[in-house]
Amino acid sequence: MIKYPNKKTSFQKEVSYANRGMKFEEMINETNRYYLAHDIAMIHKKPIPVQIVKVDYPSRQGAVIKEAYYKIPSTTDYNGLFKGHHIDFEAKETNHKTSFPIKNIHPHQIDHLVNIEKHGGIAFVLIHFRVHDEIYLLEASKLKQYEDRSFKGRKSIHIDELRQDGYLIKESIAPRVDYLKIVKQLLEKQFAK
Amino acid sequence: MIKYPNKKTSFQKEVSYANRGMKFEEMINETNRYYLAHDIAMIHKKPIPVQIVKVDYPSRQGAVIKEAYYKIPSTTDYNGLFKGHHIDFEAKETNHKTSFPIKNIHPHQIDHLVNIEKHGGIAFVLIHFRVHDEIYLLEASKLKQYEDRSFKGRKSIHIDELRQDGYLIKESIAPRVDYLKIVKQLLEKQFAK
Repeated sequence: MIKYPNKKTSFQKEVSYANRGMKFEEMINETNRYYLAHDIAMIHKKPIPVQIVKVDYPSRQGAVIKEAYYKIPSTTDYNGLFKGHHIDFEAKETNHKTSFPIKNIHPHQIDHLVNIEKHGGIAFVLIHFRVHDEIYLLEASKLKQYEDRSFKGRKSIHIDELRQDGYLIKESIAPRVDYLKIVKQLLEKQFAK
Repeated sequence: MIKYPNKKTSFQKEVSYANRGMKFEEMINETNRYYLAHDIAMIHKKPIPVQIVKVDYPSRQGAVIKEAYYKIPSTTDYNGLFKGHHIDFEAKETNHKTSFPIKNIHPHQIDHLVNIEKHGGIAFVLIHFRVHDEIYLLEASKLKQYEDRSFKGRKSIHIDELRQDGYLIKESIAPRVDYLKIVKQLLEKQFAK
């Protein structure tokens, strides 16, 4: 069981990211419901991992969890299936105007995404710049390059780098964030090789 | 938010299944850790879905969830990636000697598994007969046939039917429950067609 975070400052940061992430998360969930309803893909958000310590049964209506703790996720938030391909990704949001801090993604999540690619899956991160209302898809292998750079240099990805290395997803009515349109292009590239 | 179950009797049943399921679940988790450590596959158990209502912050050590409720899972417990193939399954245990009751699997989970097959994934259920210490893998399409039968006839799968239609998995030291050995055979069959 992992109680996190350890420091007040980092904790406040987590809460603030979680709130900021809410709206983008809902956009992605809505998109996934569209994909499922239209039989396009089966992609789900994983539940938030919690360690349950104490459960009460106050009535026959059901169990109430009275003590539980957040655990650090061992994988990413989203995975699923699209035309026989395994899809795995993390969705992040930032209020920054010009860059996305690498530390917004857990290092083990980056490792997980890279590993998914190695095992033949499609792995990426979706980054939403709130200020510009721009969403970019960045493949795991490229995300990894930016993480490697962050160990000795720049700690973030500049939005111009995302415009160069990532793929812009235009928000639309339905599906709201059509990231599978980009995934289709990536698959076509793969098969063209 | 779904509070379940609604009746005391069905609740007691759930608890008892959950306890019985513990050991088998741990066997599967151990198997998945083996697959991951040996770079064979990336298969994870999804967290238990809970609806979090109230969170306290008693100290800088971290957040404590003080009120939460179990939600009915919308998908299955396990999914992941094996040699580029999407894997999705549910693991169930029974103390019955000669049959596995269909109602031990939620109907929407059966629908989910059938849908996974349709979208090009590998979907199945693992059934552990505690009394015989026998584990069977049954493909989603066959599970569906037994569910269809249960609407007008027999409500369970007889162990002899599983011996006929399913695949016996022999328990071993490492990996403990090598279900991917069967999945490999299924994939070879698919490609032989």
